[in-house]
Amino acid sequence: MNQSIPAAALQLRSLVQADGTLQISLESIPVPVPGPDEVLIQMQATPINPSDIGLLFGPADLSTAQVSGTPDRPIVSARIPERAMPGLAARIGESMPVGNEGAGLVVAAGSSQGAQALLGRTVAVIGGAMYAQYRAIPAAQCLALPAGTTAAEGASCFVNPLTALGMVETMKREGHKALVHTAAASNLGQMLNRICQKDGIALVNIVRRPEQVALLRGLGAQYVCDSSAPGFATDLTDALAATGATIAFDATGGGTLAGTILQCMENAISRNSKEYSRYGSAVHKQVYLYGHLDTRPTEIHRTFGMAWGIGGWLLFSFLKKIGDEAAQALRERVMAELKTTFASHYARTVSLSEALSAEAIAFYGSRNTGAKVLIDPSK
Amino acid sequence: MNQSIPAAALQLRSLVQADGTLQISLESIPVPVPGPDEVLIQMQATPINPSDIGLLFGPADLSTAQVSGTPDRPIVSARIPERAMPGLAARIGESMPVGNEGAGLVVAAGSSQGAQALLGRTVAVIGGAMYAQYRAIPAAQCLALPAGTTAAEGASCFVNPLTALGMVETMKREGHKALVHTAAASNLGQMLNRICQKDGIALVNIVRRPEQVALLRGLGAQYVCDSSAPGFATDLTDALAATGATIAFDATGGGTLAGTILQCMENAISRNSKEYSRYGSAVHKQVYLYGHLDTRPTEIHRTFGMAWGIGGWLLFSFLKKIGDEAAQALRERVMAELKTTFASHYARTVSLSEALSAEAIAFYGSRNTGAKVLIDPSK
Repeated sequence: MNQSIPAAALQLRSLVQADGTLQISLESIPVPVPGPDEVLIQMQATPINPSDIGLLFGPADLSTAQVSGTPDRPIVSARIPERAMPGLAARIGESMPVGNEGAGLVVAAGSSQGAQALLGRTVAVIGGAMYAQYRAIPAAQCLALPAGTTAAEGASCFVNPLTALGMVETMKREGHKALVHTAAASNLGQMLNRICQKDGIALVNIVRRPEQVALLRGLGAQYVCDSSAPGFATDLTDALAATGATIAFDATGGGTLAGTILQCMENAISRNSKEYSRYGSAVHKQVYLYGHLDTRPTEIHRTFGMAWGIGGWLLFSFLKKIGDEAAQALRERVMAELKTTFASHYARTVSLSEALSAEAIAFYGSRNTGAKVLIDPSK
Repeated sequence: MNQSIPAAALQLRSLVQADGTLQISLESIPVPVPGPDEVLIQMQATPINPSDIGLLFGPADLSTAQVSGTPDRPIVSARIPERAMPGLAARIGESMPVGNEGAGLVVAAGSSQGAQALLGRTVAVIGGAMYAQYRAIPAAQCLALPAGTTAAEGASCFVNPLTALGMVETMKREGHKALVHTAAASNLGQMLNRICQKDGIALVNIVRRPEQVALLRGLGAQYVCDSSAPGFATDLTDALAATGATIAFDATGGGTLAGTILQCMENAISRNSKEYSRYGSAVHKQVYLYGHLDTRPTEIHRTFGMAWGIGGWLLFSFLKKIGDEAAQALRERVMAELKTTFASHYARTVSLSEALSAEAIAFYGSRNTGAKVLIDPSK
């Protein structure tokens, strides 16, 4: 197959410049020759996940985005607010590749048996720098997709599926019996609903708009609370009392939502308790912040006793903590249910250059429900 | 000894009324006859801890406090802000006794051997309702003080000593090697310094005023950071980098302090790291809020990666979690070092009625460093 591989190919790069400008461009870089244990993948499908958007744009103000260059080699520029620059010190001048996961065709392989076995196979990978026409990676990091599964179908088989499974696994390991999820109408949220329905786990979905309530109810969700509704706190408390959920995964991170969830959990717990305890209930209530959709500070009104925690939750740290064997079991479940429980949905598929058009950036940069985009770097 | 025990005696009570008034008074109640396994203690020394102030005054506005009644039987009234009333629903109309811990003389005992063995001994107890002339309690809950130890010396041998030891124990159990403490000039903070100096554990003290820096340095503290100083964040980061502290116990709870500590921990960790990670360092950073000196909401600017947690910390939950044997080991250490490591200092000793004077309330209600008061109900 080697005859069709070019000497150089495009890779998307994100660069923070010392003057406070973010620049995103497509760079021509030499196509790597795979080492003995490596394969070379022609990337065919790589999703723009919220976690990718974080690296792609950093804290740049997208309303200032300008596109220059040519249609084939667009250059996006945007301003980074001055107050965000100190936190980016280590990124300044470092042109960074982007793209956590994806799938494609193995077009070259190193000499090892493991690498050779993948030649001609469609594989899914995680490891960064996937927004590129070609990506060399250790064969051991590849998941060969089952026959009849396309690269598009396998493009998102790590981040969202393992995050959703990781939430359920965390819930179990920390001794809770039901869970809460915010921004619940997202691709990830819908996936979590399918997992919980299949596994018989009670899930309280928090969304921001009435149409998202309808969407989730249409997918069979039993508990859906709209944070924009006037009766939100009561609805949420009812759902928490009914399910006994005492752990939540919050994608928004900022503002008062995490604190409100803790307060409603405590209210649900104390509904049937007649005794006053100035320290609150003894039941531990936990909210993990796994995203930053709301970039405001997290504001916590501590009126829900002493048995509570808020903290960050990161997929990679979680996988490391549970160990290889447990992580492998999760990956096997994803493969077994890739076209059902773990299916992802994209609003559109774009090429690398189309991904950098002003219109596309405005679309996926909004992070709205249903605005998920798949990049096909081979287009 | 029974001839000197009155039929009724005074007990301090705190009452939240439906009209939003807090009322504190001394009620005459029948002196209990101890059951077979109980003893009756004539209370001689019981401290006003910050945790007692929480139950005593609730969220009442102390600037509205009025004292009526007689000098022997004063009645304190204060307004509770309307917004705080919903959280007090379970307290309304419930006249509550106050006082977590104390010490006194066993003047009567039940028929069991354990109870009889304590007759005539000076004992320390924890269990609430200690602001009273007499208190009946199971003999098993009493710690007989060593000969030569007064009730005043043993009055505070539970809450502060076990809290300070609990912080060190939590640090060890959660895999940290040094710790941070705020409001560090307090009685508790000074005790924690003595423990850490004795045990060779690095402790970063955060205080609010220059004179508190001097106070702690005079007690041999190596790391003391003044949050009112312009260079606070740099000083704290230096101390965190020097000690490797990644866990903090915060008595203030509100405002931005907990978030600032997490940020400085992350900055200290990444000082020597050259690689940019958009998820921050993988080192878990933890702040436990164990008090509410600052009643504002907790405000967290999430700019320190994903490996962090904030949560409530409560002595009673901690002791339950570590189990009876481990808790007993902590209590034995307190007894062995009661006059050295775990000595408490009081600004003054007052009677029950004196504790309800306007002047005394203004003094200990300020919660200022050095404003700790001991009540002697036998006065």
